[in-house]
Amino acid sequence: MSAFDDLKAHLRVTCALEQVQGRLGWDQETVMPRGAADQRAEEMAAMEAVLHARRTDPRLADWLDAAEAPDEAGRALIAHARREHARHTRVPADLAQAIARETSRAQGIWAEARARDDGADFLPVLDRVLALKRQEAQAMAAGGDAYDALLAVHEPGMTGAEVSALFDRLRPALVALRTAVMDTGRKPAPLRGRFDHDAQIRLAHDLAERFGYDRARGRIDMAVHPFSSGSGADVRITTRVDEADPFNCLYSTIHELGHAVYEQGVAPEFALGPLGQGASMGVHESQARFFENQLGRSRAFTGWLHGAMTRAFGDPGGVDPGGIGAEDFHATVNRVHPGFIRTEADELHYNLHVMLRFDLERALIAGDLAVADLEEAWNTRFQRDFGMAVDRPANGFLQDVHWSVGLFGYFPTYTLGNVFAGCLWRAMQADLPDLDTALAQGDPGPAVRWLGARVHRHGALRPPRETIAHACGFDPDEGPLMEYLTEKFGAIYGL
Amino acid sequence: MSAFDDLKAHLRVTCALEQVQGRLGWDQETVMPRGAADQRAEEMAAMEAVLHARRTDPRLADWLDAAEAPDEAGRALIAHARREHARHTRVPADLAQAIARETSRAQGIWAEARARDDGADFLPVLDRVLALKRQEAQAMAAGGDAYDALLAVHEPGMTGAEVSALFDRLRPALVALRTAVMDTGRKPAPLRGRFDHDAQIRLAHDLAERFGYDRARGRIDMAVHPFSSGSGADVRITTRVDEADPFNCLYSTIHELGHAVYEQGVAPEFALGPLGQGASMGVHESQARFFENQLGRSRAFTGWLHGAMTRAFGDPGGVDPGGIGAEDFHATVNRVHPGFIRTEADELHYNLHVMLRFDLERALIAGDLAVADLEEAWNTRFQRDFGMAVDRPANGFLQDVHWSVGLFGYFPTYTLGNVFAGCLWRAMQADLPDLDTALAQGDPGPAVRWLGARVHRHGALRPPRETIAHACGFDPDEGPLMEYLTEKFGAIYGL
Repeated sequence: MSAFDDLKAHLRVTCALEQVQGRLGWDQETVMPRGAADQRAEEMAAMEAVLHARRTDPRLADWLDAAEAPDEAGRALIAHARREHARHTRVPADLAQAIARETSRAQGIWAEARARDDGADFLPVLDRVLALKRQEAQAMAAGGDAYDALLAVHEPGMTGAEVSALFDRLRPALVALRTAVMDTGRKPAPLRGRFDHDAQIRLAHDLAERFGYDRARGRIDMAVHPFSSGSGADVRITTRVDEADPFNCLYSTIHELGHAVYEQGVAPEFALGPLGQGASMGVHESQARFFENQLGRSRAFTGWLHGAMTRAFGDPGGVDPGGIGAEDFHATVNRVHPGFIRTEADELHYNLHVMLRFDLERALIAGDLAVADLEEAWNTRFQRDFGMAVDRPANGFLQDVHWSVGLFGYFPTYTLGNVFAGCLWRAMQADLPDLDTALAQGDPGPAVRWLGARVHRHGALRPPRETIAHACGFDPDEGPLMEYLTEKFGAIYGL
Repeated sequence: MSAFDDLKAHLRVTCALEQVQGRLGWDQETVMPRGAADQRAEEMAAMEAVLHARRTDPRLADWLDAAEAPDEAGRALIAHARREHARHTRVPADLAQAIARETSRAQGIWAEARARDDGADFLPVLDRVLALKRQEAQAMAAGGDAYDALLAVHEPGMTGAEVSALFDRLRPALVALRTAVMDTGRKPAPLRGRFDHDAQIRLAHDLAERFGYDRARGRIDMAVHPFSSGSGADVRITTRVDEADPFNCLYSTIHELGHAVYEQGVAPEFALGPLGQGASMGVHESQARFFENQLGRSRAFTGWLHGAMTRAFGDPGGVDPGGIGAEDFHATVNRVHPGFIRTEADELHYNLHVMLRFDLERALIAGDLAVADLEEAWNTRFQRDFGMAVDRPANGFLQDVHWSVGLFGYFPTYTLGNVFAGCLWRAMQADLPDLDTALAQGDPGPAVRWLGARVHRHGALRPPRETIAHACGFDPDEGPLMEYLTEKFGAIYGL
């Protein structure tokens, strides 16, 4: 065996174990008995110890020195392995295990705190998670910026300063558009009524099929916080149901389908290797947000969805969902209004939610904000950005799972995903002029296949920005996103 | 840290990883997408490689040499670790991984073969599994008997010759009793009718609570072949439903509850260690069979069950289950008749099913029987022992999952469990003279608490036979089982 073959064989087993770890995470959030939390924390720490040992195996350095790549994919694999090896060798094994144990426990405590709408029990836990993640960030940064080191885990090649500059360009344009929309005084009707639980699930399954999700290599379950997990032949999604708000289930399902169809679409030859997954969380989010917004919330697709929802929830004779006619339904789906919850936000407010979290978590990691002051900082900032007061913790700093599980440096990838999705939309429109005809029949197939060929099948072969540039034929920036938003919301609100 | 502490810490992580492996197995048999089978086989092989490396870690030999046990539990832990270390170091890592990979795949192929009732695709897979297990057995035996080495995995301290001698004593007594029963010509009515799926599940959940299963540390799901998995704070069971035969669901549930309540009842100080689980599969089966037979099929409990089933399945006004009156119900539950399926067999035929498998698998491992000849050998032996011809493979050699997943040397532990259960029954009757009063009210609590104190809490502190001897106050043999069976079936059949 050559050094390259040894390296690849080693990474294959590591990837298989990462899949096991992912499956444990799925189990924890969907089916695990509540009394198993402490034991599971030990199991997660044990898995992390195993993975850490493999990722810092001394032989890796030798193989990386000696490996000769046979082709482009081989070069990408080596580059990926080199980056990950450097990162992991900087983190002491004890710290990696402590983070795995603490975040496994913290997740359950967060879920209870959110359910009880009381952050008191959660704050000391978050404080411990933050302390551990700051240690990890400083170790990984090796003298560089701690937040950058965390961001690089999710978005290799991107820095906090670049994100900050991007957000500084995006924010005024978004706020101006939001203000123009709100100033029209138009208020599309929200949905009203009760939408049967089982009918929502059936429609979610129908959507899964339409968006190309292979159920033979996946499954759909319920979870408090929808997520997608796994790669290759076992990619699962979860959803949730609110009988007063079917969009919550339907659009979070479409979002997770974007993640899952991406993972399922990676070329089989990359399976169980570092290239056999999404290129970054930003690129991942671009697929999820594209499915959700550019496709799922388009005028053409919502035209079909209105009929599908009428069939799913109406009387046998058929009644409009919530009493809204087909003409107004697109405006209802895309209703712009400030709200507390990121995952339920419209496309204009969504990025403001992300920017708030980015600034707060950067301050937390920098040591400029203490966990004890987090709730007040959140509420103050929310009041400023959204013009309303947070009414309860579950609608404020307790709403997201991310920080409890140690995901700092993850939030900005959502907006980065929106930026990438904007670029992909511009490129796709040039290629697929008749897309609306298919979408109007509830068929996103042409768009999914375009993304499959341009993005999905390449996995992590290229760095994130190059992945998007390769798919689009131009370097990504925020221009196409603002153009898409301006055109879409201009039409809906008659600007 | 002392050598003993090092040893204990190492074993704790190993146990945590074994729990992860068990959870993966649960996932595979309950929720895994069917297209994930090949990838899962790689994941299982990767986990096996990790575990094998830990179990054969060179430091273990040093720790085992130097470790000084602080108490009885410490001595038991060292003895357990020494035995496992010796066993695992004899098996090459490649072989352990190959077995994990092949059996993970074989299980799915077995399930399909059984569903299609056609063994053709399964035979070559079983042939590979057998070849690997023979290699493993010979490696573990290190010159000794290969079958003994496999048996010792599930029943430490027991040999094939001892099992054979036990079975030789038991068989004539069982056959004589069976013949006497059949010669009476009495034929208790079988259940007839359709028993609602959801009502069966509800009753299974009710039984779980009655038998002391802690749902906060477990869950109940559906699987083709019911099983129990996990230790400590996460012990799950599965069941299956046949609308024509509610006893299938109810009694397999009670059986798995026996396994699960045992695992949940082990003293918390043994958790995540080699003592924190059942003492052996024979002792495990004794708990499962005791729950199922001595308790669940007793006259007193079936009196309550008749009412519970009438409430669960009857019209609102209440109708006897299957039209059988309360008086005859106990005889129906314990109806002696030859049948194809082990898991549905009455208490007399059950052990004949086990003896058939024991002899065949011993011949397979010894190389005296080829997989190609297995079906014919099974069918010939079945005709001889049961007086009827196997009508199709799913009712014959394809019925059990065991061999597909490499479980050779496991079947005899079922009958060993029955023998142990007979002993425990004799001891319990002396201690709990009023047990029937509680059982008649559907409350097995006194018996479960007795087993909890005498057996469950001690986990694997003592070797299997000592565990039973400690609980009963006498050395186990087959006498009490035959006495229990003779009394029970003598009463039902008027012998």
